[in-house]
Amino acid sequence: MVDRPGGQLRAAVVGTGLIGGSILLRLHESGVPVTGWDPDGATRVEGRRHGVPFPDDLGEAVRDRDVVFLCGPLPTLPETLLTVTKYAPDGCVVTDVGSTKGSVSAFAVEHGLTDRFVPGHPMAGTERSGLTAAVPALFEGAAWVLCPAAEGLPAFRLLVDLVLDVFAARVVPMTPSGHDSVVALSSHVPHLLAGGLAGAVAGSAVRDAVLGLAAGSFRDGTRVAGTPAKRTADMLFNNREQVVRQLDQVTAVLGELAEALRGDDMDALVGHYRRAGEVRAALLDRDLHPHHRDFPVDGDRAAELAYLLELGAAGGYLTRCRVDAGSVSYTGHRPDGPAAS
Amino acid sequence: MVDRPGGQLRAAVVGTGLIGGSILLRLHESGVPVTGWDPDGATRVEGRRHGVPFPDDLGEAVRDRDVVFLCGPLPTLPETLLTVTKYAPDGCVVTDVGSTKGSVSAFAVEHGLTDRFVPGHPMAGTERSGLTAAVPALFEGAAWVLCPAAEGLPAFRLLVDLVLDVFAARVVPMTPSGHDSVVALSSHVPHLLAGGLAGAVAGSAVRDAVLGLAAGSFRDGTRVAGTPAKRTADMLFNNREQVVRQLDQVTAVLGELAEALRGDDMDALVGHYRRAGEVRAALLDRDLHPHHRDFPVDGDRAAELAYLLELGAAGGYLTRCRVDAGSVSYTGHRPDGPAAS
Repeated sequence: MVDRPGGQLRAAVVGTGLIGGSILLRLHESGVPVTGWDPDGATRVEGRRHGVPFPDDLGEAVRDRDVVFLCGPLPTLPETLLTVTKYAPDGCVVTDVGSTKGSVSAFAVEHGLTDRFVPGHPMAGTERSGLTAAVPALFEGAAWVLCPAAEGLPAFRLLVDLVLDVFAARVVPMTPSGHDSVVALSSHVPHLLAGGLAGAVAGSAVRDAVLGLAAGSFRDGTRVAGTPAKRTADMLFNNREQVVRQLDQVTAVLGELAEALRGDDMDALVGHYRRAGEVRAALLDRDLHPHHRDFPVDGDRAAELAYLLELGAAGGYLTRCRVDAGSVSYTGHRPDGPAAS
Repeated sequence: MVDRPGGQLRAAVVGTGLIGGSILLRLHESGVPVTGWDPDGATRVEGRRHGVPFPDDLGEAVRDRDVVFLCGPLPTLPETLLTVTKYAPDGCVVTDVGSTKGSVSAFAVEHGLTDRFVPGHPMAGTERSGLTAAVPALFEGAAWVLCPAAEGLPAFRLLVDLVLDVFAARVVPMTPSGHDSVVALSSHVPHLLAGGLAGAVAGSAVRDAVLGLAAGSFRDGTRVAGTPAKRTADMLFNNREQVVRQLDQVTAVLGELAEALRGDDMDALVGHYRRAGEVRAALLDRDLHPHHRDFPVDGDRAAELAYLLELGAAGGYLTRCRVDAGSVSYTGHRPDGPAAS
């Protein structure tokens, strides 16, 4: 268990919908002292049923905490970050779980909060919502992005240890802009494609027959179109430059596929699906290799930061982070073995 | 069990890959006398291990059969249809499982085979292939399209009874062109979108990081890109006019979504995802109502045909078809109750 100097670490979760609720329940099950807060009174009542303190006042919920997870909707994050850092103790580490990282991290830079705010994004979810849909095991084996900054490395290290220990996730270190570029392709464009497919069916003369024949490919291809509409729209809006850019890449490939069909070019079509199949195979059978790296706790932060960010960009992740006797020790996993030092 | 006059019905499966193999094993498990044939010798040997006769000669496999399932690759179907109808007895009913129906049914019309050939398409599969990947329960609860023609209604009725009895599928009656238009949107365009997404990642500078962060939406959105490339390409080519037309509908919606993002139109984006979510909800919670319809076996075939095709176009299906004492009795299910007679 992650400790703080002088005792066990105390956590708070602010905003206890699907993601926040899952974080809260997992912390609680793991024996971490945790408080919750949600703007919805009925949700606070529901939270107390789990035996978790849910004060009506946000300041009350965070005032003696060591770490706070901000889990409200994306547009609320900047204001909530200011409120929480006002009421929480000075040394309290704050992170969030928003699906884009550029705007909230820019806000933290503007307000001089980068030493204590670590932008985060656990890559898990379901199309359901609310505390009643929460699943404590939701993050097991999932990628959980945390964005380290040089001045915030101590806060980053504490969070990595906590996330690995309590949630059994894989921590992926990334810059906020790197994250937003990657999730545009790995998550946001898939949401657009699902919306495009479901939207075309909604307006189609053969809608009813399509629903009657829908098999696996249609069910898979429309699943995230069932996500609450406002949540999807917030996510896409918050990352719209990257999303539109990556959508252009996908529609360009779709144009090539249509061209191969119109032009009777079977070889081009088969060749394309071979390459697409290789990406799918690489996704299902990623061959990662473990390595260990140590850095002095108070040494050259640039070297530690470079190691972390290169690991995330290579598709790797951390499974251990321990601070001990003046050094920080990481265990990482990379698709192609340890990076050249 | 479906009988023929004078004894139990005897079946053959020609082409025993994933789909044909699953049909063969399910018929065999159900006690239907069945033979198999595949152009690949090793597959025939594998088939015999299941205790099913697999003659080396195709003519031998079908020469005393009452029903034959053609399950080879799409481009081989017309030639195999001619060979099978040459060696099988005159009254033998033939169906296929190809993923498009227009070209094979046109071929059957040209060759005067519509009284005995019933185009079919069971809407189930996995991204695996071959007899070793066969799953006898693959079709339970799945939609299985069968295309009735007026002169082939007796053959159609026999197949409906067999498919319901042995495979526990839902039989959806459709015209070949209606089927091809609907599956373009329900299956073929989803394969294109998966190919477009996986293809964009294959060519992306952030490919490795995307694989590292891929969560549910990306896994779902690329699953069918793992289907064997030639199989996907054959399917798309065989239906390319409808596929390109329906892809245009989807890319038009994607263009609207991108426009809403670029134009800062949050209301349009939320409104779109509400409509998309309704399609998804309708898919998951289809409220169908049963009804019964009888027709004289030798009466006005146009009325029976009209009933069947209207049922499929409405998103409905059959769960019973029995011929008894001069009348044929159907149980059907429709999303909106029984059709006006």
